[in-house]
Amino acid sequence: MSYKVVFHLDLDDEKALSMGLVNIKNLLKMSDSSGSEIHMVANGESVRLFRKEFCEINQAQIADLNTKGVRFCICQNSLDKFNYKVTDMLDLCEVVPAGIAELCLLQTSGCAYIKP
Amino acid sequence: MSYKVVFHLDLDDEKALSMGLVNIKNLLKMSDSSGSEIHMVANGESVRLFRKEFCEINQAQIADLNTKGVRFCICQNSLDKFNYKVTDMLDLCEVVPAGIAELCLLQTSGCAYIKP
Amino acid sequence: MSYKVVFHLDLDDEKALSMGLVNIKNLLKMSDSSGSEIHMVANGESVRLFRKEFCEINQAQIADLNTKGVRFCICQNSLDKFNYKVTDMLDLCEVVPAGIAELCLLQTSGCAYIKP
Repeated sequence: MSYKVVFHLDLDDEKALSMGLVNIKNLLKMSDSSGSEIHMVANGESVRLFRKEFCEINQAQIADLNTKGVRFCICQNSLDKFNYKVTDMLDLCEVVPAGIAELCLLQTSGCAYIKP
Repeated sequence: MSYKVVFHLDLDDEKALSMGLVNIKNLLKMSDSSGSEIHMVANGESVRLFRKEFCEINQAQIADLNTKGVRFCICQNSLDKFNYKVTDMLDLCEVVPAGIAELCLLQTSGCAYIKP
Repeated sequence: MSYKVVFHLDLDDEKALSMGLVNIKNLLKMSDSSGSEIHMVANGESVRLFRKEFCEINQAQIADLNTKGVRFCICQNSLDKFNYKVTDMLDLCEVVPAGIAELCLLQTSGCAYIKP
């Protein structure tokens, strides 16, 4: 099977991030890498979770999933609001102008939505 | 770009409302007013947040977004459950028989779903 | 009207379950039983809520909704993670290999998504 899906984070809630990462790992096990498209979009306070200085366990998992094709997007509006710089964030993250707009576009293009 | 999206609230959580309102403001900045369609549906305890007597800051924001075409729907089932009257609610709110049914219909008609 | 919708639970949060069950009851009142399709998918910690030994009030409601065609799915990955056996769970539950995959498939097949 192939899956198109976007996971949405918006709280500074490490548990939600961990759940999302586990969800994605489980989904990858069942997925054709060819047809699948898996995104995580972080806006609001949740952008904190993607700082370079954040706990290393999640960083290793995020990097591993990224090499398997999972895309991690963080919201520029939220970086501005909380005074983070793009360079504070994990290099593998893609900065999008507005996380909410990205969530809309991905769903319109056929992605399922999951809020862990 | 134009966006079709519904934001869902169901807790008496002012932070979720504030996040939703900020999300909508950011989306409007990126949006053609012509083609876009932005809804907020409140059911369960979240209907409390749309009472006239509720804090004025959010009311001003809600009114401003409403003049820009954003639709605010509150659930009649939830009003009944918590003994609120339609007249307790902000006049600009549209009362729908069941918030959940509205969420289904909007998604079926092509709206993305976002739970702040 | 007929409705196609999936409700997603992932926390050990009885309030979210209760809200979801009330949502479904309200939706059934407005729905043609013929065309509608209503699912609840539980993954993560929320699988605890579907154990046989769990509180009886919800069990009665779940059983009643199930006789009306509502499908309750629980995630095998989550059962494994928390060391629950399928036989610990309410007999009416359908065990799916991965709750997240089920959520994707249902949305792809036209179900709206609701996170109570």
